[in-house]
Amino acid sequence: MRDFAQDHRWLSINTATVRKQHGVEQSLPDILEACAQRGIRAVSPWRDQVAAAGLDNISRLVKTHGLELSGYCRGGMFPAVDAAGVRAAADDNRRAVDEACALNAACLVLVVGGLPGALTGKALHKDIARSRSQVHDGIAALLEYAKANHMPLAIEPLHPMYAADRACINTLEHALDVCDALDPASTGALGVAVDVYHVWWDPKLQAQIARAGKERLLAFHVCDWLTPTTDLLNDRGMMGDGVIDIPKIRDWVEAQGFAGYSEVEIFSTSNWWQRGSGEVLDTCIARHKTVV
Amino acid sequence: MRDFAQDHRWLSINTATVRKQHGVEQSLPDILEACAQRGIRAVSPWRDQVAAAGLDNISRLVKTHGLELSGYCRGGMFPAVDAAGVRAAADDNRRAVDEACALNAACLVLVVGGLPGALTGKALHKDIARSRSQVHDGIAALLEYAKANHMPLAIEPLHPMYAADRACINTLEHALDVCDALDPASTGALGVAVDVYHVWWDPKLQAQIARAGKERLLAFHVCDWLTPTTDLLNDRGMMGDGVIDIPKIRDWVEAQGFAGYSEVEIFSTSNWWQRGSGEVLDTCIARHKTVV
Repeated sequence: MRDFAQDHRWLSINTATVRKQHGVEQSLPDILEACAQRGIRAVSPWRDQVAAAGLDNISRLVKTHGLELSGYCRGGMFPAVDAAGVRAAADDNRRAVDEACALNAACLVLVVGGLPGALTGKALHKDIARSRSQVHDGIAALLEYAKANHMPLAIEPLHPMYAADRACINTLEHALDVCDALDPASTGALGVAVDVYHVWWDPKLQAQIARAGKERLLAFHVCDWLTPTTDLLNDRGMMGDGVIDIPKIRDWVEAQGFAGYSEVEIFSTSNWWQRGSGEVLDTCIARHKTVV
Repeated sequence: MRDFAQDHRWLSINTATVRKQHGVEQSLPDILEACAQRGIRAVSPWRDQVAAAGLDNISRLVKTHGLELSGYCRGGMFPAVDAAGVRAAADDNRRAVDEACALNAACLVLVVGGLPGALTGKALHKDIARSRSQVHDGIAALLEYAKANHMPLAIEPLHPMYAADRACINTLEHALDVCDALDPASTGALGVAVDVYHVWWDPKLQAQIARAGKERLLAFHVCDWLTPTTDLLNDRGMMGDGVIDIPKIRDWVEAQGFAGYSEVEIFSTSNWWQRGSGEVLDTCIARHKTVV
């Protein structure tokens, strides 16, 4: 396993981590500058942040600061109740691939979607198998476009508590089943994003990481699981403040040959979003060296 | 699948469902009486409720009202950091078996425990594999005692969001792996409690229910998953108010020959615990007939 204690050259910041300080939306250019000032070499921005600042502008700033993108957040949200909805998702996902290419991202992360309408509290049906089938078909179609544009797709299995509203792929095993079906040769065009928050509990995690292998391990995300967790979405912990044995999982991932960034992604309404960006980033650097 | 539309003879009430109305702890004798008045034939009480009213008293009331126990809540919580803690858990679990026997319960439900200390926000270690090993050993030891007392043990896989603080067995597959290891002959002495709230998201659910078979399907619990869910523990929904396709799961369970009670277990601080017990029980009966 790589030694992270000496420096933070393998730290990436998912820009959601410092996007809402004191409840105020932070601009992506400011976030990029704050990262670059601290010698952080990689980020993973969100599409809405990029759109707000302008794709060309962000593309230029990324180059100016010498930043890499460990991933681009995010494509997915495939399920819909009718053909028009499926088409709209497909179109939007191709645009996400285009943006990821413009930003030279390492991969496009896919949060695949759950039951249509559930995210706004009005699920339009309860057939999760139907959603899973649509996700399979949606990734299959997008994969052709992504391959042609040389943009790897990383399926991110989300914690089962998001099965209804955000993603109906909830285990690494399920994500890899989809990879096996759509990219049996393990070409590197389709893989997974392993976020410890979503998968730490899984008794099959080590075995499935081994199954994934280097070709399918496209991204590695870290934060921590707090006890108690007071909000299903926005109470993620800083690495070291929770119960996840992060070094053990990183060891499993690196044993397969993964040598990319360790991306910090923390949504934290009541704690980390209530502090200044500088303090949060400095803490990420310190924790990256000591507990990741 | 059995027709529940005509009556509620297969409805059981987990007494937590009406235990804290308007924030006030309800007495178990009152709950039993309210159930009996409505022709509800089965309940599943909690140990602390029984202890507060007295085991002999409850045993007598259960008989007087002609009630059955679809299960007894609960044994488990095996993990500990030292031998004394392991011993204390073993002792307490044998007492739970004794109480379940005194009440003639169909099974003792096991919520197996997670990381020691996590339930009070102070996890004493992060080694979930160690906890899982202790759970295995704890169930193995308890099983001998339970068999001698003819009390079936039902491992309840809890939703992965409880892996740290309540139960490190989080999928039906994992629970059945433990059953296979400890009771390879499927004698009926060890099985599972299938609660739709905990397992509905699992893409392997149907296959694992089939794997369990009649001998291992000891209990079936229902409520619903709300979107949004505002609290990890106490925001369960009434059947029909969420996204779980309950009849589909009941169909899978009954296809294996399960013919027991459908037990309603709802923890709901801000909704159902803010209503009168009668209204809640009447709603359980109505929903049992229409959406379970």
